[in-house]
Amino acid sequence: MAGRDLKPLFYPKSVAVIGASRTPGKIGYEILRNILEYGYKGKVYPVNPKAEEILGLKSYPNVLSIPDKVDMAVIAVPAKIVPSVLEECGKKGVKAVVVISSGFKEIGNTALEEQIVNIARKHSMRLLGPNIFGLYYAPPKLNATFGPKDVLPGSIAFISQSGALGIALMGWTILEEIGLSAVVSVGNKADIDDADLLDFFSEDEHTKVILIYMEGVRRAKEFMMVAKKVAMVKPVIVIKAGRSEKGVKAIASHTGSLAGSDLIYSAAFKQCGILRASNIEEAFDWARALAQLPPIPKRDDAVIITNGGGLGVMATDACQEYGIKLLEVPEDLIAEFRKYMPPFGSPYNPVDLTGQATEKEYYGAIATALNDERVGIVIMLYCETAVANPMKVAEALLKARKEAKTDKPIVSAMIGGEETEKAIRELNRNGIPAYPVAERAISSLAALKKWMEWRTRRGAG
Amino acid sequence: MAGRDLKPLFYPKSVAVIGASRTPGKIGYEILRNILEYGYKGKVYPVNPKAEEILGLKSYPNVLSIPDKVDMAVIAVPAKIVPSVLEECGKKGVKAVVVISSGFKEIGNTALEEQIVNIARKHSMRLLGPNIFGLYYAPPKLNATFGPKDVLPGSIAFISQSGALGIALMGWTILEEIGLSAVVSVGNKADIDDADLLDFFSEDEHTKVILIYMEGVRRAKEFMMVAKKVAMVKPVIVIKAGRSEKGVKAIASHTGSLAGSDLIYSAAFKQCGILRASNIEEAFDWARALAQLPPIPKRDDAVIITNGGGLGVMATDACQEYGIKLLEVPEDLIAEFRKYMPPFGSPYNPVDLTGQATEKEYYGAIATALNDERVGIVIMLYCETAVANPMKVAEALLKARKEAKTDKPIVSAMIGGEETEKAIRELNRNGIPAYPVAERAISSLAALKKWMEWRTRRGAG
Repeated sequence: MAGRDLKPLFYPKSVAVIGASRTPGKIGYEILRNILEYGYKGKVYPVNPKAEEILGLKSYPNVLSIPDKVDMAVIAVPAKIVPSVLEECGKKGVKAVVVISSGFKEIGNTALEEQIVNIARKHSMRLLGPNIFGLYYAPPKLNATFGPKDVLPGSIAFISQSGALGIALMGWTILEEIGLSAVVSVGNKADIDDADLLDFFSEDEHTKVILIYMEGVRRAKEFMMVAKKVAMVKPVIVIKAGRSEKGVKAIASHTGSLAGSDLIYSAAFKQCGILRASNIEEAFDWARALAQLPPIPKRDDAVIITNGGGLGVMATDACQEYGIKLLEVPEDLIAEFRKYMPPFGSPYNPVDLTGQATEKEYYGAIATALNDERVGIVIMLYCETAVANPMKVAEALLKARKEAKTDKPIVSAMIGGEETEKAIRELNRNGIPAYPVAERAISSLAALKKWMEWRTRRGAG
Repeated sequence: MAGRDLKPLFYPKSVAVIGASRTPGKIGYEILRNILEYGYKGKVYPVNPKAEEILGLKSYPNVLSIPDKVDMAVIAVPAKIVPSVLEECGKKGVKAVVVISSGFKEIGNTALEEQIVNIARKHSMRLLGPNIFGLYYAPPKLNATFGPKDVLPGSIAFISQSGALGIALMGWTILEEIGLSAVVSVGNKADIDDADLLDFFSEDEHTKVILIYMEGVRRAKEFMMVAKKVAMVKPVIVIKAGRSEKGVKAIASHTGSLAGSDLIYSAAFKQCGILRASNIEEAFDWARALAQLPPIPKRDDAVIITNGGGLGVMATDACQEYGIKLLEVPEDLIAEFRKYMPPFGSPYNPVDLTGQATEKEYYGAIATALNDERVGIVIMLYCETAVANPMKVAEALLKARKEAKTDKPIVSAMIGGEETEKAIRELNRNGIPAYPVAERAISSLAALKKWMEWRTRRGAG
């Protein structure tokens, strides 16, 4: 399995940073600092012939002079000296190289790119890049990127073909509190590509969802073969840029990838069980939900519980549009729901507790839904009111979930101001995907459903 | 014109709060407090037969005992005594009544609702409600709602048929720094309805965009007639819930409105030049852009300027999908753009300044685009990098706009962490619609284009 080869990349016992720098702002400084400050526990060796010491570590003139084994090398030197550095890495017995340097195929320098791939192959080294911002992997606390330092550990593996976008999104995930198991900048994909990474992450117990930003695919056949296998095990979400004719043209001038017909991509993704998101926000919305939610039960009817009728209607629209079935509430359950609302509330679906609802009514209605086997999914909606504190409503939901006999998918949308935003964060931190609009919650639920249905069609349990 | 009748509602010289309360948390307390604390400069009279003084103001036993004229009365008393209170208001010469109280048609009490409308008509009073959370209008600093206190003044008038959702969205606009000229809770629309309000806001110089959350329409013919006229003057955005069959059913149990076929609504909206948003986020995205952007020039080709190729590609896809034309960059302009990028950048469209761009390159490229008459629209994209501080990039954009010879629509999407979020806010505060994803920026631009095209077809300049 190709994935196995990648172990030295993700779990190196020692890392050399070749082209390490003493100057803040330089890539060779930022990467070394991120590695040290993020808490990597393995050995770290800066390589820079002009320095004695960098960031408190002894610096070596070249990789061969390091008096120890080196599993992985991060290379941030000018393109033209990458070949000789790689030869040295090969001689040293380095097993994986992360080539940050740019100046290869992306600017037409195809020969130089072929040369470095050949050197890597000759020495049985796997090569990530070139033209990348690095690699982050949560389990060994390895942040070998020149992106943001404080990435949140989590269970989403993010693979990006775009550099600037990838780094910017790393920062955005911190802001949005989205936890990542890995960030892999693949750049020119000269050696390691999406298929290799899918293979690795499919067996990685720390990764629950794989999210790829892609402009073009290398080794299309292998990619599809691997993707089909991986999607049986865990969800694969792809943002494939270049949906439009002009977008395809823009890709050509960006990464030089042949983007090809979008229809072909769409058909291929569908066949492989890949979930195709149309933009970044949607992709991470889905990823968050798929990383957190338990499977949808066989009886998959959803119940919407709301304190705002209008919000309930919009969610109902979204459920129908996204193919989420709503439960026809049976008589006995109607009577149950009625206990938690004033006479002018609605015990049908959406269950409208009305603006008079406090966290107590929310708790009662949610617990009722969670503990009834005819209910497969709970969608909790909330409009900020004076009588129902958003954090208390969030806590009521968490309590009801904790006490429930079975684990069902729950998603939430909460509308309001600052306090509501905090409650949304609280739910997300505790494994309930929560959003500021109903449509995003339901679209995420639909992604889970779509993925599960594909697996069922393919013969999974 | 019906709209003129509403002047006492929006510009009252004096307001009575009937059912004012001394108990925090009670609706009659919250409304009075909001009126006082938000800074309304007219006279305020609490009415409560059991109180001597409320919130430092002398309280009156009934509206007739107020020793002064009363233009508008906010009524928050139990439904069954609303008729007698209205009779007193009529005798007093009150010109507009805001009936907060619920317990009318929404719970089947149609007769009581007819009764209050008849009393209002008899005394030539306009009636807002019943079953509402009140009214906010920025020019007289009047926040007569029991919603959030610190609404941001601005130029979007928001009309909501849903109470809980309306209040929650008021809070959300504060969080998102979206300025509102008005919030009108229309509830049962017993007298004042969407057509009346459209009419008023069309002539209101403080309102640039009208945004309506609607479940059903009253007086469909009048609504369409007025909407068609208003949409020639300013954009009207509608979120019409009940797009799906189940959503229509949910509406019936929420407000009792007959939602009717969604296809009919869609066709009617289109004919009237109404922009139909599919959810809250989209509606406010559009509203923000339409309130801020200058008209699109006749030469309406857009230029995308980015420091991230991938982001540029996604924006290109979105432009093609939303019908925004991209400029084929002419030779001389290519040479101009080249000045602001390294050799491996792209001067075509998207103009890719690369991840090496600082605010200087952004400034140069943006100024070039803004000052070239072949460019009609500028779309600025940004991925957070170490070399380009997001706030400095935002400032560069604002500077270039300030110095530009002509005013062109500019929208922006900025991806990154906390600092980037601040830069997005800075742009929005200064009239450049900015978003955390490219698609939302371009969808907003497309809404402006769609509205302008409708007006042109209808014969506007």
